[in-house]
Amino acid sequence: MSSPQQPMTLARIGRLIEREELESAAVLHLTANETLLSPAAQRVLATPLSNRYLLEHLEMREDSPSRLNNFLYRGMNGINEIEASATEVCRQLFGAEYAEFRCLSGIHAMQTTFAALSRPGDKIMRISTKDGGHFLTELICRTFGRSSCTYAYRDISEIDLDRTREVFERERPTLLFLDAMNYLFPFPVRELKEMCGAVPLIYDASHTLGLIAGGQFQDPLAEGADILQANTHKTMFGPQKGIILGKSRGLMERISYTLSNGLVSSQHTASALALFIALHEMYVYGREYAARVVESSRYLAAALHDRGVPILEADRGFTRNHMFFVDNRPLGAGPALLERVLRGGIAVNRSVAFEQTDTMRLGVQEVVRRGFTNADFDLVADWLAALLLHDADPQPIANAVAELLGRRATVKYCDPGPDSPAVEAPAPVATTRRWADIDLRREPITLDPAGFDGARALGQLAGVFEHQTDSAGNISFQRNGSTFVTATGAYIKDLSPADFVELHDSTGTTLHCRGTGTPSAESYMHYLMRTTVDAAFVVHNHYIPSDDELDGFDVLVIPPKEYGSVSLAEAVTEAAMKSQVVYVRRHGLVLWSESLAGGRELLDKLAVALNAGKRSG
Amino acid sequence: MSSPQQPMTLARIGRLIEREELESAAVLHLTANETLLSPAAQRVLATPLSNRYLLEHLEMREDSPSRLNNFLYRGMNGINEIEASATEVCRQLFGAEYAEFRCLSGIHAMQTTFAALSRPGDKIMRISTKDGGHFLTELICRTFGRSSCTYAYRDISEIDLDRTREVFERERPTLLFLDAMNYLFPFPVRELKEMCGAVPLIYDASHTLGLIAGGQFQDPLAEGADILQANTHKTMFGPQKGIILGKSRGLMERISYTLSNGLVSSQHTASALALFIALHEMYVYGREYAARVVESSRYLAAALHDRGVPILEADRGFTRNHMFFVDNRPLGAGPALLERVLRGGIAVNRSVAFEQTDTMRLGVQEVVRRGFTNADFDLVADWLAALLLHDADPQPIANAVAELLGRRATVKYCDPGPDSPAVEAPAPVATTRRWADIDLRREPITLDPAGFDGARALGQLAGVFEHQTDSAGNISFQRNGSTFVTATGAYIKDLSPADFVELHDSTGTTLHCRGTGTPSAESYMHYLMRTTVDAAFVVHNHYIPSDDELDGFDVLVIPPKEYGSVSLAEAVTEAAMKSQVVYVRRHGLVLWSESLAGGRELLDKLAVALNAGKRSG
Repeated sequence: MSSPQQPMTLARIGRLIEREELESAAVLHLTANETLLSPAAQRVLATPLSNRYLLEHLEMREDSPSRLNNFLYRGMNGINEIEASATEVCRQLFGAEYAEFRCLSGIHAMQTTFAALSRPGDKIMRISTKDGGHFLTELICRTFGRSSCTYAYRDISEIDLDRTREVFERERPTLLFLDAMNYLFPFPVRELKEMCGAVPLIYDASHTLGLIAGGQFQDPLAEGADILQANTHKTMFGPQKGIILGKSRGLMERISYTLSNGLVSSQHTASALALFIALHEMYVYGREYAARVVESSRYLAAALHDRGVPILEADRGFTRNHMFFVDNRPLGAGPALLERVLRGGIAVNRSVAFEQTDTMRLGVQEVVRRGFTNADFDLVADWLAALLLHDADPQPIANAVAELLGRRATVKYCDPGPDSPAVEAPAPVATTRRWADIDLRREPITLDPAGFDGARALGQLAGVFEHQTDSAGNISFQRNGSTFVTATGAYIKDLSPADFVELHDSTGTTLHCRGTGTPSAESYMHYLMRTTVDAAFVVHNHYIPSDDELDGFDVLVIPPKEYGSVSLAEAVTEAAMKSQVVYVRRHGLVLWSESLAGGRELLDKLAVALNAGKRSG
Repeated sequence: MSSPQQPMTLARIGRLIEREELESAAVLHLTANETLLSPAAQRVLATPLSNRYLLEHLEMREDSPSRLNNFLYRGMNGINEIEASATEVCRQLFGAEYAEFRCLSGIHAMQTTFAALSRPGDKIMRISTKDGGHFLTELICRTFGRSSCTYAYRDISEIDLDRTREVFERERPTLLFLDAMNYLFPFPVRELKEMCGAVPLIYDASHTLGLIAGGQFQDPLAEGADILQANTHKTMFGPQKGIILGKSRGLMERISYTLSNGLVSSQHTASALALFIALHEMYVYGREYAARVVESSRYLAAALHDRGVPILEADRGFTRNHMFFVDNRPLGAGPALLERVLRGGIAVNRSVAFEQTDTMRLGVQEVVRRGFTNADFDLVADWLAALLLHDADPQPIANAVAELLGRRATVKYCDPGPDSPAVEAPAPVATTRRWADIDLRREPITLDPAGFDGARALGQLAGVFEHQTDSAGNISFQRNGSTFVTATGAYIKDLSPADFVELHDSTGTTLHCRGTGTPSAESYMHYLMRTTVDAAFVVHNHYIPSDDELDGFDVLVIPPKEYGSVSLAEAVTEAAMKSQVVYVRRHGLVLWSESLAGGRELLDKLAVALNAGKRSG
């Protein structure tokens, strides 16, 4: 397609969009990969809040202002509250303890779990495209420098467990991915989990998320999947967006950390809100909706089959989810058949599915939301049979389609229920200051050589842990009643004297300092440690251990706190009174010692326990 | 933040969103990283078309139905037309020959160019965070298995070219990235391009895209950058989305191919439309807008400076773009200062910028769109000075802010101009069939052993080229007046007899076939080749060579055509009469030979010329 010589006017763009909207509204969408939003969810996509940034995971996001690392911005407290409620919805609907809503799409969610839970060079087990696997998975593996192997199948939608076990034992994948885009029946999640043991099993429910929410199809997390991820716009009637859910804090924190550190900045505020609305609609109406989707899918498949349209898996009842497949082979070529159906006003997907079978894939999730009855589905079956089997004149059918859609214009499963007494937001709690303030005298300082040498040596050790970047972590030492802490941006693996700032005393939470750099955002933590534990050195890096790495090691784990906050400083200091090593979830390790030798010993032990050698880079 | 025990009602969600919208509307947004959409762009974000898929690059997208590989779906012709016009806008505003609109975000655009233009293990040159580089770049490098080195700086926003050349020569990066998030002055693009020669130079204009569009700041593609990429929601007043622009077909095709093959499925239709609208607004109003942005930024910086607020780079005129930086060091700690300003109803970013300086980053692009006058900026300077220098009571200021915003509620630089006579869409051209049809007798066939062995041998050679997946490419051989072509999904690197289908003859574009599989979507191409060139073997793989790989090699290059189309078959066949090797842009190589020996020779030569050894994997 060549470009015009002259761009079109804005008025013409408006007219073209309007025409496109009218045309799309006259089409019966039986595509299995799209959805219909409720008016409330649709409307919020255009909220002016879409122009505002919404950064970080909820657990790291306090009331406005918000911060991502050293970047601070105005936050939106009302959205935090809605997101907390959406997380509770995910607990109740999916059995997920933790939810990650920041992925921009289903593909983005895939990339995130790949990046977070595997490493370049690793092998990932995926479903082959000929068995219904997603056609992008293998390519995503390559883009991220991973290789892959595939499950063995014995029939459509049926994994051969014995042969798959052979593949698993031979290929030793480090991640199992159930990434189907064409499938009809549940996966043997329990058996696969039994097979793969500690290797994480990721269930991609992009197609069936709404059914799972409504108690249909299967219950992946309960059956043993470690991660449930999906896009949110097929049977889940949300916007085009991604979601990641899990029960293990360790895995979900790795995922969140990876997202915050390279895979997303703002999560796109408006679609996050639309997803939250859809999740709450699912909470209220999901069971009824999902049951009706599966019932309708089987009903329409049978109705077509009765009229002579070949449908795959007739003897197994066609399907257990929202979609089923017309076998195009006796009818002609898929692309030509698709065109014929489209001329009749009906949109479907043509897909080359199981064992390279030319098929038409139909899904009923969208028309169920319009309240289609079985009588409506009988009409649809008549039309499709006429178009596919008898090459009927499409125009009268397109007219009848438009007429039926006119009678089914109201979106169901979304009306707000009786307005129960609203749960009121908790009253704001009176708090101490959120962040320490700084009073800095900008002047060169001199450092005690022994203190500096010690801090530098510990920095070299602490800097090899994973997730260290050129501006992560901070270190302090005590000398002559002052705390000497690294400046913001100091590279702890290679410290020089100019990297230190002196904290001599404080007034309340205002730190009085001297030096040429800006003291680390965590200075108040280092300062407090001086007053509570007798620390000669305090080291803080951003290593996020996995759950099993903490097993059997003497480390106190505390919940996430906002970066750089007074509450983080207080919580760490309290924990430090009980343990020399503290892990702040989602944030990193803090350790202290009374001497340089003690600090060395601690870091060496940690490096072994956390397998830092293998994981550093 | 802990979850509530009971999810909130939909009504409460609605009220919370409304409250958030009201609060945000009363805030003076001086953040440098956000924008204000026009009513037309804002409204289209909620179009029901947001539920529909928009796949593939425009050049590969014909009229509805559309296809991505073997996946077909209803397309949207009106949107294709708008996108073609938006591409023309990019030609005129940025000097870009090619535009890629599918990236979901600026981070996604970064990932795309990394993945497309470098390989795992490569080294990428980036701006260090202490010099204003984006804080996620280094982490993205790691996620994709790349390492990095950094430019040498000699001052704020000033690259030291001599020392940077030393770094370049020592580190030998394979990609140069200008990825600043904090900067004030243009980059020495010409000099850097002179230095790096054939190594691609990528200019990330996330902050300044709208200024560049309006002829301000600098003109990266004209000055030598190979790729101009950005998010589209800072000075470009579009939605939260990404864009990639370039002049080189070779680089841009790699980028598009990478996107289609693993980095995106649907580009999110509604935000694509909002971006197209914003680009057309920029085409009409951009020059006036961009000039006013730079003028206003310098004006407000000077006004603050005059009032005693310390601003970085006063002696260089503060800035040449939309943002400038308050030096927080004499005033207190950034987070506390930010809170104070926010209580006065003014939102800014707190950022630790150049050499770890604690700063407040202000941008005027959003209020310029509201038509702020210099008198308005004087008021803003008064308020900020009162808050920052004198810890003034914030409430009266917040009230005054809301009052001013009420008077500046209309979005400027976007009213549709006089409705010029609309450029009418071209009348549909009568065409031959778009795709071949298939008439398949499902029965086993027997293959000539010599023909099969030859095709298998060529498949082994052709399959090693890059971008081969388990279902990419197809091969045919002629025997006894029939064409034997691989089935859809056959893995050409390891063919078995069951992978072949016989095409014995045709009626028009309907192919009459026998076999057990579905013939390749490109069967018609193989079939046509039989009637035009005397091909014993035809091999088609999905290798996308870069421009220089084609230099000096005897290959005929033809424009992209839709996957599996009759027009692709016809174009390749016509080209094949002139050359034994044809490269279909964005799609892959087709080669034919009169004998097995000839085919081997061709593939061996190609493998050397295309450096396939190095690039296969």
